[in-house]
Amino acid sequence: MAAPHDAVEVIARKRDGGVLSDSMIDWVVAAYTRGEVADEQMAALAMAILLRGMSRAEISRWTAAMIASGERMDFSSLSRPTADKHSTGGVGDKITLPLAPLVAACGVAVPQLSGRGLGHTGGTLDKLEAIPGWRADLTNDEMLRQLEHVGAVICAAGTGLAPADKKLYALRDVTGTVEAIPLIASSIMSKKIAEGTGALVLDVKVGSGAFMKDLASARELAETMVALGTDAGVRTVALLTDMATPLGRTAGNALEVRESVEVLAGGGPQDVVELTIALAREMLTAAGRGDVDPADKLADGSAMDVWRTMIAAQGGDPDAPLPTATETHVVRAPAGGVVTRVDAMAVGLAAWRLGAGRATQGEPVQAGAGVELHARPGETVAEGAPLLTLHTDEPERFARALAALDGGIDVDPAGAYAASGVVIERIAAD
Amino acid sequence: MAAPHDAVEVIARKRDGGVLSDSMIDWVVAAYTRGEVADEQMAALAMAILLRGMSRAEISRWTAAMIASGERMDFSSLSRPTADKHSTGGVGDKITLPLAPLVAACGVAVPQLSGRGLGHTGGTLDKLEAIPGWRADLTNDEMLRQLEHVGAVICAAGTGLAPADKKLYALRDVTGTVEAIPLIASSIMSKKIAEGTGALVLDVKVGSGAFMKDLASARELAETMVALGTDAGVRTVALLTDMATPLGRTAGNALEVRESVEVLAGGGPQDVVELTIALAREMLTAAGRGDVDPADKLADGSAMDVWRTMIAAQGGDPDAPLPTATETHVVRAPAGGVVTRVDAMAVGLAAWRLGAGRATQGEPVQAGAGVELHARPGETVAEGAPLLTLHTDEPERFARALAALDGGIDVDPAGAYAASGVVIERIAAD
Repeated sequence: MAAPHDAVEVIARKRDGGVLSDSMIDWVVAAYTRGEVADEQMAALAMAILLRGMSRAEISRWTAAMIASGERMDFSSLSRPTADKHSTGGVGDKITLPLAPLVAACGVAVPQLSGRGLGHTGGTLDKLEAIPGWRADLTNDEMLRQLEHVGAVICAAGTGLAPADKKLYALRDVTGTVEAIPLIASSIMSKKIAEGTGALVLDVKVGSGAFMKDLASARELAETMVALGTDAGVRTVALLTDMATPLGRTAGNALEVRESVEVLAGGGPQDVVELTIALAREMLTAAGRGDVDPADKLADGSAMDVWRTMIAAQGGDPDAPLPTATETHVVRAPAGGVVTRVDAMAVGLAAWRLGAGRATQGEPVQAGAGVELHARPGETVAEGAPLLTLHTDEPERFARALAALDGGIDVDPAGAYAASGVVIERIAAD
Repeated sequence: MAAPHDAVEVIARKRDGGVLSDSMIDWVVAAYTRGEVADEQMAALAMAILLRGMSRAEISRWTAAMIASGERMDFSSLSRPTADKHSTGGVGDKITLPLAPLVAACGVAVPQLSGRGLGHTGGTLDKLEAIPGWRADLTNDEMLRQLEHVGAVICAAGTGLAPADKKLYALRDVTGTVEAIPLIASSIMSKKIAEGTGALVLDVKVGSGAFMKDLASARELAETMVALGTDAGVRTVALLTDMATPLGRTAGNALEVRESVEVLAGGGPQDVVELTIALAREMLTAAGRGDVDPADKLADGSAMDVWRTMIAAQGGDPDAPLPTATETHVVRAPAGGVVTRVDAMAVGLAAWRLGAGRATQGEPVQAGAGVELHARPGETVAEGAPLLTLHTDEPERFARALAALDGGIDVDPAGAYAASGVVIERIAAD
């Protein structure tokens, strides 16, 4: 049978500002996945999409075509509703770790398929892999059983979900087309919809340490994704949250696990607690359990109980000591005053350069490496007091980490800092 | 040594509407030619260039980088000045055949590197190959000797000129990026500048049978190419010429050779003669021989003498009968009246479908196939009089050729036709 379309015809339609038909989208995504549309053709199309945009209907169809390229999971056999969370990625963003067991403790199952980090943002799996014995890879059956019996699972996404997205993402990465909002939105949402969750809360980060640096583009991405989820029958809501400053006081794998356990124990940094509870409320409401208050389940230790069971179910020892780096370096305040700025990108780059992150897929990461913040914006420090501690197993990494931090922290002797909440805006379906 | 640039950095600069630096352009063209920048990266860059455009300085540098990817020819040892012509391609465009010997007869050497046809436009080499014995492939030495002794050579471009262009053109063809004016202009001009001609006249076609359908884009392309030639020290001028109607009365390889010989013998269709002389005048003026009148050299038979010598020098027999197709089909006027329109694209498609052209590179063409026009716009025909004769060796091709012609010719019983010249506009350096 002759192909219903031709790659050049599809590219030219978008290049000239036209709308791709359903049939064109279905064909080009499927033919690209099969290798019949070449990488150079998809690269030209991706650039045309980036510069010309896509309508809501086109993005929705594109997402559906990516879902159709692979398998779909089904959680309808579970005895409780499901809700998932996706973060667009930030520095010190360990929220999934306390959030998944907290929501499960409230009676909603959390099937959290996560990824590894790349560049300055860490990956949830890298963080959990700092826990001795913990394993990320589960079969679909293991995942379903754990969801039923524990209520929460954080594991690696199988290769069967949206293979078109996997191929397209690798292509976009080398062709300067990562930044296309329709393609970002459909990449995230194709995996989340294929995963089969009933409700989805999106944490769209805004600021220097986030992929979206400004509020307008973060809002556009959030609105696009909420529309996609809604069109696909998933109750979807988004929070735009601050990523000008790192979340909490740690960036780095084992360091973030330690901080997450502090939150589950009822302590931890105020911004991490605030965002964990805000996202938990949204997930519970979207899953129809808005009557439960997650703050109670954090306070009464039931979220911690789920955490321990969840870690143990995947081979991890929740009581084992976490790895620590062999070398540390303390950065001290050059003058006394109020900390007015801690730049998320500077801290993220430093943690990456210390060994917490990777430059290319498949590289190992150091479990103990990272940055510990002793003062957050709004706090007062004395001259010579510790501002940061850098952790690594390889002391030759300190110099480049310090260079990344240069100019990233402001301490103002006469400064004032106007505190604001982590959540900037909430975006729900029309 | 580390690469001075990264492909994603270069793509992102153009994607975001920026200007590529000289160093970026030199690197990306050279690295693409060497295979270090991948096809998918160049495809994304080509689409960004198509949609974002390029400054005159960027196009000039890009052209220089493509020239630098290969060898340059040098005609400075010749005893006479050189001038070349390039047409952007049209239907029935056999002008190179009478033009090259005509200009040579006026004392200016013509090094005409030509190509084969693709799609509905014919190629000069395909036409000349209809002459028994004629060969297109010459070494650089053979070309130089023929230029000195005969004054005109029409041959295939060697693979050594602008190899970056060869690779990029093949990529653009499959990625919907052929239409980028900066890339069209640099593709044409890189080969013409590398070829080493002293003067260049561009025949930029406009109309249904041309690549540029409207005057504005044809003018933009012509201005861009004239600027590029001028920047490279080649005296360059462009004529915008009509391609709404086919040139002359024939489209097809041997048919067009026959018509060209008629022009060289002092006859032939008025529009072909007009354009041949107009282009010859421009070439002579640009080469510093504006004192010679090409009309005289056509009338006195000296252009025909050069033609015969030129064909014989490449193994062709100028006296051999030309191939004819085995089958013909006559299309007759459905009513009497004035022919008000003969659509160039319709005739070009018909000639292609009859076997005169090819769909993919390397396909053979029929020497005798094509379309013969018995009436051109402005001429009056009686009901039932022959309008066209279709020629092919394969009669099963008639149906699809007739379908291409459907609606392509208007005969108006009460019609009037306002004749206009072939040359629409002249564009010279500022």
